[in-house]
Amino acid sequence: MRLPDPIQKIASELSELPSIGPRQAIRLAFYLVGRSKEDIRALATGIDNLRNLKICERCFFIHQNAGALCDICSNPNRNQDLIMVVEKETDLVSVENTKKFTGRYFIIGEIPKTGLLAEWQKLRLQSLKNWIQKGEWRTENGGRNGQANEIILGFNPTALGDLQASLLAKELTPFAKKISRLGRGLPTGGEIEFADDETLGSALDRRS
Amino acid sequence: MRLPDPIQKIASELSELPSIGPRQAIRLAFYLVGRSKEDIRALATGIDNLRNLKICERCFFIHQNAGALCDICSNPNRNQDLIMVVEKETDLVSVENTKKFTGRYFIIGEIPKTGLLAEWQKLRLQSLKNWIQKGEWRTENGGRNGQANEIILGFNPTALGDLQASLLAKELTPFAKKISRLGRGLPTGGEIEFADDETLGSALDRRS
Repeated sequence: MRLPDPIQKIASELSELPSIGPRQAIRLAFYLVGRSKEDIRALATGIDNLRNLKICERCFFIHQNAGALCDICSNPNRNQDLIMVVEKETDLVSVENTKKFTGRYFIIGEIPKTGLLAEWQKLRLQSLKNWIQKGEWRTENGGRNGQANEIILGFNPTALGDLQASLLAKELTPFAKKISRLGRGLPTGGEIEFADDETLGSALDRRS
Repeated sequence: MRLPDPIQKIASELSELPSIGPRQAIRLAFYLVGRSKEDIRALATGIDNLRNLKICERCFFIHQNAGALCDICSNPNRNQDLIMVVEKETDLVSVENTKKFTGRYFIIGEIPKTGLLAEWQKLRLQSLKNWIQKGEWRTENGGRNGQANEIILGFNPTALGDLQASLLAKELTPFAKKISRLGRGLPTGGEIEFADDETLGSALDRRS
């Protein structure tokens, strides 16, 4: 059966979004039709407003500032010499919410399962290297031989995350005195009985 | 960390959609920001266009016709005396795609797990009863004592679907000569070895 054009069209747009399949897209389209005209307008306007957001030239997080840098990159109180590489904006938000990280971020984007960086990711990585080498953000501290103090590879503690980390470690070793990863162990609130061997092994190795 | 307003806003709109959680909503928002301005505009326009769709006064499917009825309800070649009640628009589309059903549909909407109809669903059900009783759509066939020939309860073959069907069967028995449900058995392409007991039992009962 041919669906009405507006449904067909929006379903194909929606199904291009990550983690939304073609069936869910059609379901969502029908759901939206059933909402009030005001609700539909509000959603459309909200999406349209996203066009006004900018992407930080340094870390690639989003912002609404007049300049080219996001709130974190333009904050002189953030440690200029400690950089955490993360895959996604949402990873940055999660780390930021701990209020424990005082350095900078760098968003490399989701790395394909092949372990090969896409062209635009290579460009991002190159821009990171350039920033570190030029030491522009560290001029106030006197710049230090084109190296950051520490680069934390903030990837998931999974086989894929390990692959991503080893890939970036190879690329970034010349640009930091130290390369580190997030610590592994028992998650707070978890139970020893249900921890998998890997996790429990890490917890034992890193007992404190 | 406070997300920029446009992200915050669209994430909360998106998380109100069915089967999209708050985390996925934020991920989607960030994903959209990364798309081109044209892509964002296209999605926003597509959603806004949904406001132009109408809902059929008889079966509650969507349409774009000048009148009050959808393509199926306004098609005189569709069997006027055979009605399939379905939960969702997508169920209607699936049945319609078989090209085997020549009757009408009636969309009751997703029935809550409590098995109780929401107020708007009671109104829909009442409108169905009214249509059948007045026999308006069957005047060309001479109207038949306020009863349809057959009402098919097109609900899922699950415990919840059984509950929904028994609920509607009770309501609709006076309005149809026959109340039926969709047949159960082995799904085409399935394997006997992996069929569950219920399915295999149904297949045995209904062997042909």
